[in-house]
Amino acid sequence: MSPVAPPRLSLPELAQQLRVDAVRCAAAAGSGHPTSSMSAAELAAVLLAHHLRYGVARPDHPANDVFLLSKGHASPLLYAMLRAVGAISEEELLTFRQPGSRLEGHPTPRLPWVPVATGSLGQGLPIGVGLALTGASLDHLPYRVWVMCGDSELSEGSMWEAFAHAGHAGLDRLTAIIDVNRLGQRGPTRLEWDTGAYARRIGAFGWDVIEIDGHDIDEVDAAYRAAVEVTGAPTAILARTVKGRGAPAIEDRNGYHGKPVPHPDEVVAHLGGVRDLRVPLIPPDSDAVPYRFPTGEAELPTWQVGEKVATRDAFGDALAALGTVRGDLVVLDGEVSDSTRTGRFQEAHPERFFEFYIAEQQMVAAAVGMQVRGWRPYVATFAAFLTRAHDFVRMASISRADLRVAGSHAGVSIGPDGPSQMGLEDLAMFRALHGSTVLHPCDANQTAALVSATLDVPGISYLRTMRGATPVIYPPGEVFPLGGSRVLRASSEDRVTLVGTGVTVHEALAAADRLAADGIAARVIDLYSLKPVDAATLREAARQTVAVVTVEDHRPEGGLGDAVLDALAATGPVPRVHKLAVRDLPASADPAGQRRAAGIDADAIVAAAREVAAG
Amino acid sequence: MSPVAPPRLSLPELAQQLRVDAVRCAAAAGSGHPTSSMSAAELAAVLLAHHLRYGVARPDHPANDVFLLSKGHASPLLYAMLRAVGAISEEELLTFRQPGSRLEGHPTPRLPWVPVATGSLGQGLPIGVGLALTGASLDHLPYRVWVMCGDSELSEGSMWEAFAHAGHAGLDRLTAIIDVNRLGQRGPTRLEWDTGAYARRIGAFGWDVIEIDGHDIDEVDAAYRAAVEVTGAPTAILARTVKGRGAPAIEDRNGYHGKPVPHPDEVVAHLGGVRDLRVPLIPPDSDAVPYRFPTGEAELPTWQVGEKVATRDAFGDALAALGTVRGDLVVLDGEVSDSTRTGRFQEAHPERFFEFYIAEQQMVAAAVGMQVRGWRPYVATFAAFLTRAHDFVRMASISRADLRVAGSHAGVSIGPDGPSQMGLEDLAMFRALHGSTVLHPCDANQTAALVSATLDVPGISYLRTMRGATPVIYPPGEVFPLGGSRVLRASSEDRVTLVGTGVTVHEALAAADRLAADGIAARVIDLYSLKPVDAATLREAARQTVAVVTVEDHRPEGGLGDAVLDALAATGPVPRVHKLAVRDLPASADPAGQRRAAGIDADAIVAAAREVAAG
Repeated sequence: MSPVAPPRLSLPELAQQLRVDAVRCAAAAGSGHPTSSMSAAELAAVLLAHHLRYGVARPDHPANDVFLLSKGHASPLLYAMLRAVGAISEEELLTFRQPGSRLEGHPTPRLPWVPVATGSLGQGLPIGVGLALTGASLDHLPYRVWVMCGDSELSEGSMWEAFAHAGHAGLDRLTAIIDVNRLGQRGPTRLEWDTGAYARRIGAFGWDVIEIDGHDIDEVDAAYRAAVEVTGAPTAILARTVKGRGAPAIEDRNGYHGKPVPHPDEVVAHLGGVRDLRVPLIPPDSDAVPYRFPTGEAELPTWQVGEKVATRDAFGDALAALGTVRGDLVVLDGEVSDSTRTGRFQEAHPERFFEFYIAEQQMVAAAVGMQVRGWRPYVATFAAFLTRAHDFVRMASISRADLRVAGSHAGVSIGPDGPSQMGLEDLAMFRALHGSTVLHPCDANQTAALVSATLDVPGISYLRTMRGATPVIYPPGEVFPLGGSRVLRASSEDRVTLVGTGVTVHEALAAADRLAADGIAARVIDLYSLKPVDAATLREAARQTVAVVTVEDHRPEGGLGDAVLDALAATGPVPRVHKLAVRDLPASADPAGQRRAAGIDADAIVAAAREVAAG
Repeated sequence: MSPVAPPRLSLPELAQQLRVDAVRCAAAAGSGHPTSSMSAAELAAVLLAHHLRYGVARPDHPANDVFLLSKGHASPLLYAMLRAVGAISEEELLTFRQPGSRLEGHPTPRLPWVPVATGSLGQGLPIGVGLALTGASLDHLPYRVWVMCGDSELSEGSMWEAFAHAGHAGLDRLTAIIDVNRLGQRGPTRLEWDTGAYARRIGAFGWDVIEIDGHDIDEVDAAYRAAVEVTGAPTAILARTVKGRGAPAIEDRNGYHGKPVPHPDEVVAHLGGVRDLRVPLIPPDSDAVPYRFPTGEAELPTWQVGEKVATRDAFGDALAALGTVRGDLVVLDGEVSDSTRTGRFQEAHPERFFEFYIAEQQMVAAAVGMQVRGWRPYVATFAAFLTRAHDFVRMASISRADLRVAGSHAGVSIGPDGPSQMGLEDLAMFRALHGSTVLHPCDANQTAALVSATLDVPGISYLRTMRGATPVIYPPGEVFPLGGSRVLRASSEDRVTLVGTGVTVHEALAAADRLAADGIAARVIDLYSLKPVDAATLREAARQTVAVVTVEDHRPEGGLGDAVLDALAATGPVPRVHKLAVRDLPASADPAGQRRAAGIDADAIVAAAREVAAG
C-alpha cells in the first residue's frame, strides 16, 4: 500500500510534517488541540518510522502492534500520523471535526485504526494494560502495546491502577510514552517538568523508567530501543516536551490549550510548509495466528423447580460451563470472586481468569482491551461497586465495545451489610448507556440461559444477580429472548398487572396469591429484560387490566418502573401505574425485613394493587 | 463523661477487649467482619489511649481530631472502640446489624461519632485529605486526621489520588494507618506483607513512611509519636498484622473474611474474657474556634433579557458573588476551572478555591470532608467526567452529606468535541441518588438564582450548565423555587404541552412559535427542576392539553422524560407523552447540527407536536 520511502526519511522533517498537519486541521476546524499535539511530534515520528509494527491496509491483523492515544484530545497528532502512513488522505485530514467526518474531535473507532475511543483522560493506559495482557496471556503473540499519555492524566487514580497491575504482571511488551509538556488545561500541572518525581513514583510500581528530552530524535529513538529490550517489566518513557513546540509565539505558554494556533499560516511557514512525506511502517509478522484455547462439550447447569438457589450461584456455574464450550470467554474479577461466584470459572479455566484486586476501573478497562482482539470478556463485581467504573463503561459504549458486565448483590435484599454494599442505582446507570442491554433474572435456570445469551450480544450488556436464594420457577431448558418477558399469571379476569424483576417477581407472585384469595385476579409479568423491553406484552396487559403496579429492588429513578412507563407511553394510552421502589435510605436488617421496610414486599404490592384495582 | 481511668491502663488488655467485643458483636449478629477488626486491635488501642484528642460527649467539637475507618467493613472494631470510650453501652454493642440499630453493617453517620459513611473501599483516605485541608486551610485549627486503611484498598486508584494530593500539599496533620494483614476478601493481596514495596510507593508521593509490627504496642506508639512530629509531609504507618489475630485456629488463614469467628465463646475465653476497660481520651483544646472568612456585600450578577449568555458563565459569576456574601462557600476544581468558570471564584476568593487536577474522585471526596466541618463545598467539572466520581457521590448520599455539584458541557450541544466530552447520562446518575436535587437552568438569571438556592439545600444537589450561549428570557430578580417550573406559554386554546429543560426550552419556544403559525397552540414549560419535580403544573397541563412532548439533551433513560412520566403517573391519568432525547451515538458537528441530528431541535419538536396534536 505505501509507496517506497525516500532512502533516508528525515525524522525531523517528519516531525515537522506532523506539526504542520496538526496546525492545519485544527485551523480548518476552528477548534481542537494542536498545541498538545505539537509537543509529541518527535515522539510520534520516531515511533512510526522505526518501531511500530503495523499493517496499515490490515488494521485487524492479529500481529499488529497497538498504538493508543490516551491523551485523546491530541487527535490532530493522530490524524497527522494517519496521513503520514497513508491511511487517510490530505482531503480527509482537513475534514477534522466536520459533520460526517471520521476524524472526530476525540478519536473513536469510526476509524479502523483506532481500537477504542479516548478523550476521557486516564483510560488509554489501563486499556493498554488489557491489550498487553491479551497479547501475553490470550493471543500468545509478540505484538507490543504503545500508549501515548499526557502528564495531566497522571493525576487520575486509574493510571496508578494501571501502573500497579502492569508492574506486578511484568508486562514488558507495554510502553507508556508520557508527553510531559508541563501545562494542563488551565495552568501548570502539579509536578510540571519534574520527570524525576514521576520516575520515582512509576519506578516504585515495578516499571522500568527512562527520562529523556522528548524533542531529541536520538534520545527518543534510544528510549524506544531500550523499552523493546527490557524484559520482565513495562517501560515508561518520561519525555520532557514543550507544549505548542514549533509555534514560537505560544510555546510553553498558558492559555493556548484546546484552541487553534493563532496565525496558522505563519506557523506553517515557520515550520517549513506543507510536506508530503510517507512513512513505510514495519509490517507485522504475516504468519502470526492468535492462540485459541481448546474447547470441549458442556451443558448449561440446570436446577429443579422449587429448589432455592441464588442467581449469583447460577451465574458462576453457568459461566464455568460456558467457558468449556467457548474458548474465547474470559472473566475479570475485582477481588470478590467468592461473592460474585466467578471463582467457579477460575477453578475450571484458570488461564482465562484475570484478577484485578480492588481496582474496578482497571478491570473494566482491561476487558475493553481484550474485546478489541475478539475475546469475550465478562466482568463481575458487586453492582454497587460498578459505579466506580461508570466513566469506563460510558467510554466503552462510545468505543462500541462488546462487553459483558455482571453486578451481584442487587438491592436492599442483600440484608444487613447496609446501603454501601447495595446495588440500588445500577439499573439507572446501565440503562442510560447507549446501545446497552440490561437483564435481571429471577431464578437460576433463567440466569443460566441469559448468561449464555449475553455472550453474543453486541454492545454493553449488564446482568444483575442476587445475593440470596430465590425459588426456581422455570423448568430447565426454557428460552428467554433478550427483549422478552414472561407472563407468569394471566386470565381473562385479570384486574391488575404486577410487574417485577429479580427478587420482586417472587414478591409479586406471593401478592397475586393473596389478591386471588380476595377475589382480585392479578396478572404477573417477569420483566427480566429491562432494556430492550417487551413493550407488546406490557401493552397487552395495559389493555386487559385497569392498572399496573411495578415493583423493584432499586431506586424509583431509571429502573423497572421507568422502563415500564416509557414502553407504555411509547405504544398507546398509559393506564394507571403505581411504582414501588426503594425510596428511603436503608439500614441493617435481614433481607425480608429490608424489603418490608422499603415497601417492595408482597404486603406492599397487595396494598398498592388493592388501591389501584379499586380504581 | 468518662470515668477516671485506672492508673495504668493496660494497652494489651485494651487491645484484647477490642478483639473480644468485635468477636462478640459479630457472633450476636451472625455476620460481619471480626477478623479484619482483630488485626487492627493494637493500632486502635494505642491511638485511643495516647493520641486521639476527642471529646466523646461533644462529637461536634471543632477541635476534635478526626478518626475515619476507611476499611469500613471492620465496623466491629469501630463499635468496640466506641464502647471502650464510653460512647455506646454494652447493650448497644450487641445490637450490631440488628434492625433499627445505629450500629450498621458498615459505619454511617447515624452514629454521631461517625462523620462519613464508609464501606466502599478507597474512600476514607481521600475524604481524610479533605478534612486535613479543612483543618489547615479553612478552620485553621490544629486537629489531626487519623485514617485507618486496609491493605486491599491500596489497589484503588482513588487512594493514589489521595497520596498525590496530600503529599504535594504537605498535609502533616494527616496520618494513614495501614493495617497490612495480607489477606483480602478472596485471598492474598497483590503485595501481601511486602510493606517495603508499599513504603517505596507511598514515599515516592512525598509521604513520610514508617514500617512496623502492628501488634507491637511500643512500635505502634512510637510510630504515632513520630507521625505527630513530622512536619511538612503526611505520614503513612505500614503495620504488618495478622488477620484474625487472637483466634489461633483462623489466624492468617484464607476463607475467614467477612464472617463471624467460629466458636466465639472459646475465642473470647482464649482472649481472656469480657472486659470493661474505659479509655479516657485526651480532650480537645476547649477554646478552639474555627476561622471564619470575612464577608462583604455583593449582589447576584444580572443580565438583560435578550442577551446571549452561557449558563456556565452565569454559574461562575454567581459563584464569585456568593463567595463574597457567604464566607463558608468553598469551590473545588478538577483542572477545568477555565471551562466550568469556577476560575472566577478563584480570582475573587483564592483562599477558598481548591485545585485537585484531573482527579475527580479525590475532588468529590475532599468536598465530603469539608462539609463535615460545616463548610459549603461546590464541586465542578464537565458533566461527563462526574461519572468518574459516581461511587463517591453515591457514598456521599449515604453519608447524608450536603454537597453541591455542578456539571458543565451538558449534552450534544457542546458541538464538535464529540461524545466523550458530552454529559448525556448525568441526569440519570444524579436523579437516582437518594435525597438528591437536580436542576438544569436555561438562562443566565435563572442560573444565578438557582446557584444561590442550592447553597442551603440539604443532601446532594446537582446543577447542570451549558457550554454555549442561550438567550436570557427571565428578567433579573425572579425567584425560582426548587421543585418549581415556569410556564412560558399558556392559553385556554392549548392543544399540546412542550416540556423542555436547559437548551431545549429555547428549542421548545421556537417550536411553539411555528406551531402557533400553523394554528396549533402549544403550552411551553421550563422544567428547570428535574428533582423534585413540579407535578402540579404538569398535571394541570395534562388536563388542559391532549398530549405532552418532552425534549431533552440527554439519553432517553433517567432524565426529563422519565421525570415527567413519573410525575404524571403518580398524580392521575397519563396523557399521551412523546419523548424526544438523544438516542444515537453523536459524532462531531456544530451545536445546532448536533441537536438536529439527535432529533431534539425545534424541527423535531414541531413534527412530534403535530403528530400527537392530531392524535
